[in-house]
Amino acid sequence: MFHYRRRVQFAETDLAGIVHFAWMFRYMEEAEHALWRAAGLSVVAPNSGLGWPRVSASFEFRSPLRFEDEFDVRVRLAGATRRSLRYEHTIARGGTLIGTGTMVSVCVRDEGVGRMQPVGVPSDVVERLRAALDRNSG
Amino acid sequence: MFHYRRRVQFAETDLAGIVHFAWMFRYMEEAEHALWRAAGLSVVAPNSGLGWPRVSASFEFRSPLRFEDEFDVRVRLAGATRRSLRYEHTIARGGTLIGTGTMVSVCVRDEGVGRMQPVGVPSDVVERLRAALDRNSG
Amino acid sequence: MFHYRRRVQFAETDLAGIVHFAWMFRYMEEAEHALWRAAGLSVVAPNSGLGWPRVSASFEFRSPLRFEDEFDVRVRLAGATRRSLRYEHTIARGGTLIGTGTMVSVCVRDEGVGRMQPVGVPSDVVERLRAALDRNSG
Amino acid sequence: MFHYRRRVQFAETDLAGIVHFAWMFRYMEEAEHALWRAAGLSVVAPNSGLGWPRVSASFEFRSPLRFEDEFDVRVRLAGATRRSLRYEHTIARGGTLIGTGTMVSVCVRDEGVGRMQPVGVPSDVVERLRAALDRNSG
Repeated sequence: MFHYRRRVQFAETDLAGIVHFAWMFRYMEEAEHALWRAAGLSVVAPNSGLGWPRVSASFEFRSPLRFEDEFDVRVRLAGATRRSLRYEHTIARGGTLIGTGTMVSVCVRDEGVGRMQPVGVPSDVVERLRAALDRNSG
Repeated sequence: MFHYRRRVQFAETDLAGIVHFAWMFRYMEEAEHALWRAAGLSVVAPNSGLGWPRVSASFEFRSPLRFEDEFDVRVRLAGATRRSLRYEHTIARGGTLIGTGTMVSVCVRDEGVGRMQPVGVPSDVVERLRAALDRNSG
Repeated sequence: MFHYRRRVQFAETDLAGIVHFAWMFRYMEEAEHALWRAAGLSVVAPNSGLGWPRVSASFEFRSPLRFEDEFDVRVRLAGATRRSLRYEHTIARGGTLIGTGTMVSVCVRDEGVGRMQPVGVPSDVVERLRAALDRNSG
Repeated sequence: MFHYRRRVQFAETDLAGIVHFAWMFRYMEEAEHALWRAAGLSVVAPNSGLGWPRVSASFEFRSPLRFEDEFDVRVRLAGATRRSLRYEHTIARGGTLIGTGTMVSVCVRDEGVGRMQPVGVPSDVVERLRAALDRNSG
């Protein structure tokens, strides 16, 4: 599990006084991208021509987050196929489970004007993500 | 199916040139709330003391949306239990499927300071939503 | 004045129960882009290579907006220099002034990898925007 | 000057490949609220009944921010009247100025149902903010 810490910002709350549910997906993505950086990678590698659009995303909500709460997003690489990466996330505030989620991304070659061609996930991406997860789980 | 039409705004796109994936959840919510209004209801009924937090949300992405695309969100009430409402959504741009999603909300009584107590879904809410769906599906 | 109508969405509110202040800038932008469409233009013209980054933006807040409020954004082209366009906006809900704002954009040529070179505003852009404003001000 | 460090997240970029301009206002707010925390305060003090809506906000844009950029928001309390606080912000990435902004907030008593009554800024708020600024500017 890779660990990403974050604080709830004011603009992330809604009139119910809690974090708007759609923010959980952004929190999951922030943790994923922090994992990539820990692996010496970026989802936006200028010369690679690769992109990582989502195929699916889901979240199960257990407890709300509130303004100024500090919370932790834990993310692991739950699966890697030839063309996709599957992440599983747990969000918690201290010992309180906020919820759990999954996201699946595919690797594509960006062919300009928004056209995307599915391609294989580069093997070093998976290796580096796994190595970063090992280093950070100790 | 209730039908909600929307256009992609600039701030909803990301550097990949397409709508950021987390916006799909906001689009689904906008359609849901438009359905409530069509039913003569609001998820924020000042004197009811009721709220509708999410229990789960998911989306399967099929095609991207781009800046200024006009698209349609179709939402139906796929299930209603004593304490929850389940919505199913389809997002499309003309004949192109953008993706499908689900959201489950529970009914709670807001007890202040962010405390929420689960309560039964008022029966007239389900009746009115179904009537609005019938009127709008013709 | 070009006129753009909008309804406040749930995710645009914050825990104070009103629209988060930064949304006013998105509302202003939505109106500006609707004006461009009314002029037969788009700020994202695929083959033009032009972009319109902001130079300045400001807003004076007078009254809050709340969930499900319908409101109007009125935008006019307050000035056009060789390299910039200046918009002035008024946001109101019925007879209640929500606030007033300004935005200045410059015209640039996108030279890739995020490099931008200032260029002159195409004369037909100003003409078309003014024509659209005339048509819509009746 | 109080100093707040932040990294650009993917969802904050737009199709032009840079941070969407309206995010600068959220960055300014995040720095302001971090300053309040450094002063042992919160803009959301549950029992105070006070709120801090914006009266004005502006930003002058000099250079764009891009995905994964680390940047610094510096905020100072540029003025305090009986009823308002004025902040001035500078955003920079290393030695590159991204832009400068201002925000003015007034102190109100929240009277429920979104009604707000202007009240005087508590004197200890100004003292604590100034003390935090002194401690953090050394």
